[in-house]
Formats: sequence, C-alpha cells, structure tokens
Amino acid sequence: MEINFDNNNKLLILLPIIYNIWEDNILTEKEFTAISNYIKGAKWLTEDEKVFIASKIKFSDPPTRSELNNWLNKINSVASNSANTLTELGILMANNDRVIFTGDDIQKIAPDIVKLEISLGISGPEATQRFLNNQNSITNTHNTNQSFNVGLMTSLLNNGQDDLINKVKLIIKSADFELNIPTDTAEFREKVLQWCKILSENGLGSYAYPKEYGGKGDINGYFTIMETLSYHDLSLVIKFGVQFGLWGMSVLSLGTEKHYSKYLNDIGLLNIPGCFAMTETHHGSNVKGIKTTATYNHINRSFTIHTPEKYDRKEYIGNAANHGEMATVFAKLIIDDKDYGVNAFIVPIRNKAKQTLPGIAIEDCGHKMGLNGVDNGIIYFDNVEIPYDNMLDKFASVNTNGEFESRIPSDNRRFFTMLGTLVGGRIGIPRSALSAAKVGLATAIKYGDKRRQFGPENGAEVPVLNYRMHQQRLMPYLANSYALTFGLQYLTNRFINRKEEEMQEIEALAAGLKAYATWNTRDTLQECREACGGKGYLSENRIDDLKNDTEIYTTFEGDNTVLMQLTAKNRLSEFRKQFGEMSVSTIFSYVVEQAKTSITEKNPFAIRNTDESHLKDAEFHLHAFQYREKEVVASAAKRFKRLIDSGLDAFDAANIMHPHMLQITYSYLDRVVLEQFKLKIDAEKDVALKEVLTRLYNLFALNKIDENKAWYLEQGYMDGIKTKAIRKLISQLCWEIRQDAVPLVQAFDIPESCLGKIASSKIEEA
Amino acid sequence: MEINFDNNNKLLILLPIIYNIWEDNILTEKEFTAISNYIKGAKWLTEDEKVFIASKIKFSDPPTRSELNNWLNKINSVASNSANTLTELGILMANNDRVIFTGDDIQKIAPDIVKLEISLGISGPEATQRFLNNQNSITNTHNTNQSFNVGLMTSLLNNGQDDLINKVKLIIKSADFELNIPTDTAEFREKVLQWCKILSENGLGSYAYPKEYGGKGDINGYFTIMETLSYHDLSLVIKFGVQFGLWGMSVLSLGTEKHYSKYLNDIGLLNIPGCFAMTETHHGSNVKGIKTTATYNHINRSFTIHTPEKYDRKEYIGNAANHGEMATVFAKLIIDDKDYGVNAFIVPIRNKAKQTLPGIAIEDCGHKMGLNGVDNGIIYFDNVEIPYDNMLDKFASVNTNGEFESRIPSDNRRFFTMLGTLVGGRIGIPRSALSAAKVGLATAIKYGDKRRQFGPENGAEVPVLNYRMHQQRLMPYLANSYALTFGLQYLTNRFINRKEEEMQEIEALAAGLKAYATWNTRDTLQECREACGGKGYLSENRIDDLKNDTEIYTTFEGDNTVLMQLTAKNRLSEFRKQFGEMSVSTIFSYVVEQAKTSITEKNPFAIRNTDESHLKDAEFHLHAFQYREKEVVASAAKRFKRLIDSGLDAFDAANIMHPHMLQITYSYLDRVVLEQFKLKIDAEKDVALKEVLTRLYNLFALNKIDENKAWYLEQGYMDGIKTKAIRKLISQLCWEIRQDAVPLVQAFDIPESCLGKIASSKIEEA
Repeated sequence: MEINFDNNNKLLILLPIIYNIWEDNILTEKEFTAISNYIKGAKWLTEDEKVFIASKIKFSDPPTRSELNNWLNKINSVASNSANTLTELGILMANNDRVIFTGDDIQKIAPDIVKLEISLGISGPEATQRFLNNQNSITNTHNTNQSFNVGLMTSLLNNGQDDLINKVKLIIKSADFELNIPTDTAEFREKVLQWCKILSENGLGSYAYPKEYGGKGDINGYFTIMETLSYHDLSLVIKFGVQFGLWGMSVLSLGTEKHYSKYLNDIGLLNIPGCFAMTETHHGSNVKGIKTTATYNHINRSFTIHTPEKYDRKEYIGNAANHGEMATVFAKLIIDDKDYGVNAFIVPIRNKAKQTLPGIAIEDCGHKMGLNGVDNGIIYFDNVEIPYDNMLDKFASVNTNGEFESRIPSDNRRFFTMLGTLVGGRIGIPRSALSAAKVGLATAIKYGDKRRQFGPENGAEVPVLNYRMHQQRLMPYLANSYALTFGLQYLTNRFINRKEEEMQEIEALAAGLKAYATWNTRDTLQECREACGGKGYLSENRIDDLKNDTEIYTTFEGDNTVLMQLTAKNRLSEFRKQFGEMSVSTIFSYVVEQAKTSITEKNPFAIRNTDESHLKDAEFHLHAFQYREKEVVASAAKRFKRLIDSGLDAFDAANIMHPHMLQITYSYLDRVVLEQFKLKIDAEKDVALKEVLTRLYNLFALNKIDENKAWYLEQGYMDGIKTKAIRKLISQLCWEIRQDAVPLVQAFDIPESCLGKIASSKIEEA
Repeated sequence: MEINFDNNNKLLILLPIIYNIWEDNILTEKEFTAISNYIKGAKWLTEDEKVFIASKIKFSDPPTRSELNNWLNKINSVASNSANTLTELGILMANNDRVIFTGDDIQKIAPDIVKLEISLGISGPEATQRFLNNQNSITNTHNTNQSFNVGLMTSLLNNGQDDLINKVKLIIKSADFELNIPTDTAEFREKVLQWCKILSENGLGSYAYPKEYGGKGDINGYFTIMETLSYHDLSLVIKFGVQFGLWGMSVLSLGTEKHYSKYLNDIGLLNIPGCFAMTETHHGSNVKGIKTTATYNHINRSFTIHTPEKYDRKEYIGNAANHGEMATVFAKLIIDDKDYGVNAFIVPIRNKAKQTLPGIAIEDCGHKMGLNGVDNGIIYFDNVEIPYDNMLDKFASVNTNGEFESRIPSDNRRFFTMLGTLVGGRIGIPRSALSAAKVGLATAIKYGDKRRQFGPENGAEVPVLNYRMHQQRLMPYLANSYALTFGLQYLTNRFINRKEEEMQEIEALAAGLKAYATWNTRDTLQECREACGGKGYLSENRIDDLKNDTEIYTTFEGDNTVLMQLTAKNRLSEFRKQFGEMSVSTIFSYVVEQAKTSITEKNPFAIRNTDESHLKDAEFHLHAFQYREKEVVASAAKRFKRLIDSGLDAFDAANIMHPHMLQITYSYLDRVVLEQFKLKIDAEKDVALKEVLTRLYNLFALNKIDENKAWYLEQGYMDGIKTKAIRKLISQLCWEIRQDAVPLVQAFDIPESCLGKIASSKIEEA
C-alpha cells in the first residue's frame, strides 16, 4: 500500500509544517533544503516514509492546488487554541483518532521539529493561530459606544454663543453656500465676494464695530463668526477677515472719530472693499523695516505715498488684485526729510468702476497653493497724494504747524503699540485653524469608523479605527482639538477683558497660540489626509482644501517661528524681572535644585512611579508641565548669559539660542492649555461629560509628556520605566477614547454639508 | 539754573534706564512706578534732582520724540562693549568728561540701580548691546563658501547615468515642456498626454522592455528616467509611470510571449494607452480581498469580467478617466463556481475613438489634491467577455480541459509572487519622491541664501540661511537627500542583480524604503514651504505642486503604514529564523546583555563620552544604529510572545504591536541607509568631496540618533550629557554645512526651469 497522510497518522505531525512551506510567501528554495535535511536524519521515519515526505517537499514539484486545499481542511478540522507551535498542532492531528505520540515519544521527537520550525522562521504565533476561527477577536468587536450626551457637549464647546453660532450655520448650510469650489480662479473670487456680501447683509461683517457705526460692538461675536465660518470654505473666511477684520479694524484701531463716521458703516456693509497693506516684498516678518514713504506736504497739508524701489512694493495684499477700493497703507512718515517711523494711512486705490487710480499699479499674486478665492495682489505707489485727513491718527499726527505729535515718543514703541491694537488677527486665525482641524478630524474619524480593511484569518474585516496605529494617529489630535478649544476661549477672554498692563502678556500669548494652533492644524490635517488614504486625496472630501488653505496660516499674521521667538522673549523678560540675571547662577541653581529636590531626592520613588493612578493624576501632570516650563526658561537665561560672558555678540548669542527659545514657548503654552482644560473639567457638573473629558485630558497631558520624554529623561525627571509606562497608557487611552470618537466629533456639530463626502451619514462605507 | 542732563553729569547714570523705559515696548505703567519709587528713596540725589528725574519718568507726560532721540545720541556716543549692564553704561556716561563716580561711590549706589534694572526686566545683554554698532557679528558675516567641485559631485550622484540623465534633462528643458500648469483639469490632462507622447517618441517609454519589443532592456535606465523627469511636473511622471510602468510592466511581468509580441511595442510608443486596475473601492490596502470576478467559460474558452457590487469597482485607476484603451484587471478567477484566487487579465475598455466599450462604465475620480494632470477614474465591468488569450498567464492558466494549472499551488503565495514581480513601482516612486524633495531643497536653500530679514542693531539684515533655526530646519533634510540618494541606488542595484532567494528581502527593503523616502519628501517639502514664507505659497515657486503631487505618494503603491508593517514582518521573521522564538527569552537576554555589556558595563565611559571625535566616529554611529535595530526587533519578538502567552489572539496581539513594528522598520532602514552612505564616502577619492560628504554623513547619523534619543536614554545606551552634546554638535554641523549648502543643491544639477522662480539666479533677492 502506498504511503499517504490518510493511512499513516504518524506523518500528520509534519503536515502543518509542510502546508506552511507551500502556503507561506516567505520561504525560498534554500529553506526547502533545511526541511529535506531534517527528514533525511529523522530516526522515527521509515525509509518509505522518508521517500513519501521527500516527494511532498520538492521545490520543483509542488503539490496540486487541490491537494494543498485538502491539507488545509485536515488541519482546520483539528486546529485548537492549545497548540502553540506547528509541531504541537501536528501532534494533535497525529493523535486525533488514536494516540500515536505519548509523552516519551514527544520528548524524543518534537524538540527537533520545533527547531526546524524556528530555522524556517514559521514559529510565530500567527503560524498556528491562522488555522483558528477568530471572528471574536477583541479588535474585531470593538466599536463606537457613546458614553455621554452629544448635545450637552456641543453646548459646552459653544461657550454661551449658541445663538450666533446657529445663525452662522444656517447661512453656510443654505443653498447659496453650496461647497462647489470652482477651479477657475476668477470665478472662485467672485463667488467668495458674493458670499461675503450675503454675510454683511446679515449683519455679520460689522459685528465688532461700535453700535453707532452699524455694528454690535461685539468682538467676541466676531471671533465666533470667524470660527464658525471656518467649517465652510477658508477663502471665504480670509476674505471676510481681510475686509471686516484687517481693513475695518485697522480704521477702528488706528483711526479716530472722523474716520469712523466716514468709513465704518460702509466697510461693514462691504460697500467699500478694502485692503490692509503692511507687508512688503523685502520686509515680511521684519515689518518695522518697511520702506514705503508717506511724505508730508505742509503747503496743502497732504501726504504723498510712494514706493521707492521695486521690492518695497506691498505684497500678498488680500482684496488688492480685484476688489479693493481703499487700503490702509503702512509707511514711514517723512516730515522735512526726517523719518518719523511707521504710520498708517488710508489710500484710495480703485474707483467704483474698479479702475485703478492714477499713481497706483497693481499686480496679481497669481495662483497660490490655497485660498485662491482671495484676490491677493501687489501694490506699487508712484507719488500718490492723499488728503491730510487720511492719516490714521490715533497714535500720532502732524499738527497745524506741520510738526509731528505723539503721546508715544519712541518710534519703536509707537509702532509696536499700533501693532498691539491689531492683535485680534492672532486670535481669529488660530480659532479658524482649529475649526479646519475639526472638519478634518470629523471626516477622518467618521470614515475610520466605517472603513473596513484586513481582519483576523477567517474573520470579518475590521473598521480601521480599531487599529491601534490608526487610533494613535488620530486620537491625540482629537484630544488637542478639545484642549485648544478651551485654550483659545481663554485667550479670547483675556483679550476681551484686558487691562492695559496685561497687553504685553496677552500679545505674547496670542502670538504663541497662533503658532501653536496653526501648527497643530497642519499636523492634524496631514494625519487626517493619510488616515483617509486615497479618499483623503479627492477634493470631494475637502481635506485637500483645508490643508492647502490653512498651510499659509503658519506664515501670515506673523511667521510661526518668529512668533514663537516673540513669545519666548516675553517669557524670558518676565523671568528676568522675577529672578534677575546678574545673579542668575545663584537664583537659578536654587530654583532648579528646589524643583529637583522635590522630585528626585525627596521622592526617589516618583521618577519610577508607574502606577496608573499616578500617571492619571492631574497633580503629576501639572507638576511635570510646570517643572519643564520653569527649567527651560531658567536654563535659557543662564545659557544666554554664559554665551555673552564668553564674548559673543548679543545677536550671535540670540541666534544660537533660537531653538532653545522655541522650547520656552512650547513649554509655556502646553502648561497654559493644560490648566484651561483642567479648569473646564472641574467646572463641569455632568458626570458623563466629566468622564469623557477627563480621558481626553489625560491623553493630552500624557501625550505632551511623551512628546517631550527625551527632555524629561535627560533631566532625570523620569526614568525609562516611567516613560515606557506612559507610552502604554497612551495606547490604552486611545483604545478607550476610540469608542467615543465619533460622538466626540459629532459634538463639534459641523454642518454635514461642510464635511468630506466620506463622512456623510448617507454614504455607506466607501 | 534749571537742572538737566547736560549740566548735571551725575544724573547721566540713570539715562540709559530712562531711555529704555520709553523706548522699550515691554514696560507698563506699573513698572514706571518701580523706578519712581527708587528715585524717591535715592540718597545720592538732591530734592531738586529728584524732581527733575521724576519729571522725566512720568507715564502720562512722555518726553518729546526729539528729546528721546537726543538721549539716544548721547548714549550711542559713549556706548562700549565693556558695559555689561545699563548701570555700568550710565557710569561710563557720567564719568565721561570728568570722573563723578569712583569705586566707593559705585559700590554704594550701583547695586540698587542694578536691582532696579532687574526688576524692570531690562537687564538682558541686548539692553546694552543695542547701543553698539554690531555690523561685524559672526551671524552677519557667515556666507556661502564653496569647498568642493560641484561637477564632480553631480557625477557622483548620477552614478554612471550621466548620458541618459542629460538626455532627459534636454527634453524637459525644451520649450515644449515649459512648466505652465493649467488650472483647467481637462487642458492639463491633454498637456500631460502630449508630454508622454514626446517622451515615447524619444524612446524613453519602452526603455525597460526587451530589445525585441522596441525597448532597451534597461530597467535601471527606466528608474533613472522616472527620477530625472521628477524635477519636472509630477503628473507627467505618474502618467508616464502608469502607462510604461504599471500597464506595460504588468504585461511584461505577468504575461507571456503571446502578449509581448501583441502589445509591448505599441505600449512603449503610447499607441495603446492603458491602465493597471487592481485597487477596488472596498479593497485598497487589502488587495488580496478584491471581489471583481473573471469567470471562465469553457464552451468558447473566454472569461467574463464582472463587478459584483457597487464598491467592488476599480478605483483611482490612472489613465482610466480619459485616455486608457485597455487595462490589466485583477480579478478572482472562477472555474465551475470555484474560486482560484486573484489573477490578471487584459480587458479592452475603449475603442480608438475613445468611446467606452459595451459593458464598461467609467466615472471620473474628479478633482484631486494634486496630480490633476492624471486622469484617474473608476471602472465598472458588467459581464464583459474577453478572449482566452487575454489572461496574463505567466503564473497560472486554464488548460484545454478547462482545469486550473499553476506551478504555485497556494493562491496566497501565487498572488504575492505576482505582486513581487511588480515591485519596481516601489523603487520608481521613492526615487521620484526624492527628486521632488531636491527641487524643494534647491529652491528653499537658494532663496534662504539671498533672502535677508532682521539683523543686529545698526547692522545690515542677515540672509535667513544664517539663522541657526533656519539651518536646523533645512540642513538635516539636505543630509537626508544625499543619504537617500545612495540608499535608493543600493535598492536599485539589489533589485537589478537579484537572485530568486533574495526577493523577499528586496521586496521588504523596497516596501520600507518607499514609505521611508516618501515620508521624508513630505516632511522636507513641508519645511521648505514654511522656510520660504509667503513666497513658498505662490504657485510660481512650485513647492505647492511638489507637495500636493507627492502627498499621495505616501498612500499609493501601498499605504506607508501598511508597508512599514510588511517590512517589519519580514525582519521579525528573519530574526526568528536566527534566534527562534520558543527560547526567545534566553537567547534574547543573551544577545541584549552582550550588547549592553560592551557598552555600559565594559565601557561605562562610552555612555557619557562627549568628545567630538567620538561623536563623529563612524564606528560609534554604526554601533548605535545596529544596537537599536537589534534591540527593537528582539524586544518585539519577546513582547509578541508575551502577549500571546497572556492569552491574546494573534490578531489582537499584532494590533497592539503595530507601533512597535514601525520602529523595527525605521531602525532597519536607518542602518541600511547609513551603511550605504558610508560605503560611498569610503570609495570616494577626491578629498574635498570626501570632506563635505563626511559632514553631511555626520549630520545624518547624529540627527537620526537625536530623533531617537528618548529611546537611547530609556535603554541607558546614552546619558543625558551625551544626547545634549549631540544636539550641540548638530547645530555646529548645520552651521558649517550652510556654507556649502548652495553648492550642494547646485550639485543636483536640476534644470533652472524646474526650480521655483525665487531660486533663479536671474532674480535678485525677492
């Protein structure tokens, strides 16, 4: 009788391995030789059996497809969880109808077969588990499981602005606002202008202006409008911001009553489209260095606006290429050949028929990466004369004798005071950026909950949001989006309720949070794009426009890297006020040692404490954040001093310090946002809301610590065992939050018309 | 006589402080009070003097602008490097024409004034240095200073392919190829098709095909063409790749002689535009799960291609929306109701008049984030019958009895073998991605060398590339671009000279490097965009298209995250072959302890060694990279086993392991690329080239270690003191490489027509 697997149970011990070598994609001819060699030396096989087995493992003579399938069926029918190796599985099969191998045999035979498995690299747990029916794996059964009331959460996020938010949403949900972005730039710009017109007709343009000039005197409302509009197209948001924010608010902030009564009403109704012309080609970030001149002519009390050299032209000016009729122009005031620093002037640039006025030359900035609905342009002034009243004269003026007058004698200080009044832009932009990130998150998370791909052997495919990797890509950004909502509400409140002496701090906070939030949006949308795969690349799913439009958010209203330095300087200055610098080395050492002592020496247990309750303890988070903030700024002061003492020029020293300065700002803002998140949770009464917010809060806190773990390890603030435990807890938190992820993005209450198509509840997984 | 600063030298000691409080933007009213309080208590001032000083520090009554300027002139005329504080500067001024304050007085008076400075926060080094003329700061005078021969470097990078590269460059520099991208999609698609036609007419389309079918049999040349074309528009590259790579190579790799003679010549000449139809809406990454069927009909020996359900349609198919006439379609072969796994078939989809054939329905994927010159479409098949010969039958066929035949019995293994023959795409794409990154780098670095912004007080503005921050944003990516050039050349060589038994390893390497290189491009271009500020946002500077076009590189030809897992699985499998798993805990401990021993116990000095020579030692780098690679894979094997032993299902355990698996691939590829970089340097004869490449190599190596420093710290492989020293050395290397940065990007020899406008040598800083 011919030998085969059916009539010789003993041989079944090898069947799982033999099946694997034909099925597995990894094995090469070389490895077939390994098994062949084993067979030759196997004492428990007869020569005939060896011949048979050798015939089944001949690289050049594979089994037929149906034979392979028969083997698989055989193995499947016996496969059990108790087999940890293919050899154990083989023993199970061999012993199936009667016992062939007992303990003794197994000890004699099995170890060599196991070695064979190992040498073939088919010894992993997948090797045996592939034969099991795994439909009920944990990964497979995880799903959306809402734990809180979505409406309550929406209300919390809306922060008392529900009515206004709903009003704006009604408009952007209307048929007029259908999101069908033209690829043709000219067409797109006209559409955006029309949208702005509709918004102004609904009283939204003038919201921040005083009531006597048609507004509501509600700057908080203005920010809410910007934020809510940002679920919709961002060209609209920026056009809106240029017209009603930059242009209108520059008149309001830098001008006086005569300007308000003449212009504000019409600006708010979009009857005078206007520009904010500050940036020059050669002076982007270093605005103090602009070269455009405004020369005072005493004879007729006028000013002549002029672009001295080609690259002193105003560049990237929104509303300039097509629609703007006037512009707030920043120029150096010249009186009798003397330079009185940068001041602002209203300069007409087009007539009502949209013809460029004499002396004005305008070029189109052309196609851009995004925001193509905004008509950015370049403006040149060739000795353009404007009347005396067109100087925006809140901070400086020319008196009737033709003399310069200002209550702020320093040109530098005056300029920065003027800029300070315009800080609102640095609140509107990060809030807009955050909304864009939320649209991306809502789209990617809803899609990830539906989209299935891969799964356990023999089981159904799994929603991609069940993959830990996918969770760890998206959940931290979801936590950030909640944290930043509260952080930016705090910034807004500080700004609205500001006292004069707080302005520097608030400006620094706004500058920093603008950079912090817009970079967060950049990173969030990048992750969302990739998380949606090919779907994320299709324009119908909006992530492309959201990404490309917000890309420039990291540059305009102040380049992020420069803004981070600005905030850091403020923090360093505050630090010096507290601790000075001459004695830095002593005071510094004291501060640090004190901090270190409380952690390491006084409590050597803490740096290795991996208890979950400790890692989730808000006191631990706050201490870690504060410690980092203090240490980073103190070490910067010390290092700066050391560089200067070594003979370096201050500018060179500052240059070396820039990367360190960035860390000052990050550590400061992380702490501020953390605190605001915590305050919000503490004030919340609803238990379910409190719980889900606490999970997000823990993820936010631990993720930031994880991002900075190298620093904490360098400082000896934490041991490796603790940073690893944090990593593990983050994975666990992402896993838990995934169940509430869809409700958490539903709580943003973004109009469905503004989400990517793949997020739509009407579309099945696609 | 009235008291003033001119007639009372003693008071000048306070002038620098007083000037500062009016000039500085940071001080608030509260702080004016501090100085006022000091004056009240100052014993060295008479009552009259106090009254005078008080009048100069009244918040509500500032000095005039000209008075402030007078003070500045006074201070400037005396300012000296020797003054470290405003108080010291004041003493210098007070003592200027005769000595007012001597040692004793200074000891009595100065400390309190210094305290005042500190409390006002105006005690930083900038406070005194602002009065100095700093034109010769180090930052200010740093510049481009070429150290090597650019032509030699170009030749090194070209790797022997100069002729072909120059041929391709000549074409993309020609007038026909002017980079003037239409915003209109239809127009853009036609332009790209015309470009492809020109390339095919120049014999570039068929380069990889055998000579007997019109080609050059040169797959290496094909990759070189893709890479060089990628300096130009990337829609062109992808359309080219779809036609001559995916479509043509699928016929070549999966078909047999009968297909070659019938199709290849025409494909290479673009006479038969075609598609590669694998991906389905419901099956992107999990291609094995596709649902399209190819049912064999024995009566007339034909196949019926069919899309069973809506989302089983083929999606994102390049060339499908407009131009494709045929498609390689992947479908499950069904014979007598039995499923024989995924096979490939040639299916005509349009006639020459571009009309869709019966049974074929095609939708346009619509506007995309990028690559809008490629006509991606969705294809549905409604029982489309194709002749027997249209089955691509290299790996499987249906015999004359209507039976399935294949030399690979396992459907799984056969499918992955088929995919393996198509691995070329995973070489072409990362090489294309790298070229795009180089265009971005060349643009941003050339611009950064010209663009000036800010500068020391009273000094000229500084090229932004002199800022450490700017250097640290761009130089590591410049180093990566060199490292990856050599890494991808290595991959190409391995692929071209492959032996059958190496295929698995090469496939894993290609999958990993595809992900590694395309993510590097994503990050490089992001940094370049931001580094160019507003200019980086204008389409004329190309970073927008480069970014948006390569964005999908991280998804197509295999989602990067999935590919990283694939590579990691291969590494883990290789590890298991070497060390097994059953005994992992013992072998593992041995390996790790041995490694650890050599570092920590045997050489406790090493973990704290901060000598520059050590940090620049290639042996240190290699050891650190290898240690990480081995440790990460060994710990993964151990952890996986632990998870399974704890009762977890293999699928669930794998899910938890995904982030860890990513690290296996990163650590593996970092080591491979490092080695290839080093080999290239070792083989280089030219001393200048060797030196600059070594600087780049050091930056690459240390930057990777820095990126993973948390891991090294957790392992105890390095102490904080060492990771900090590495950070410092990276800053120094960036500073040094900056001098060669422009020549280093010039060595890419990218046609100027392909660079952003701002990089053009014809345009002055703008």
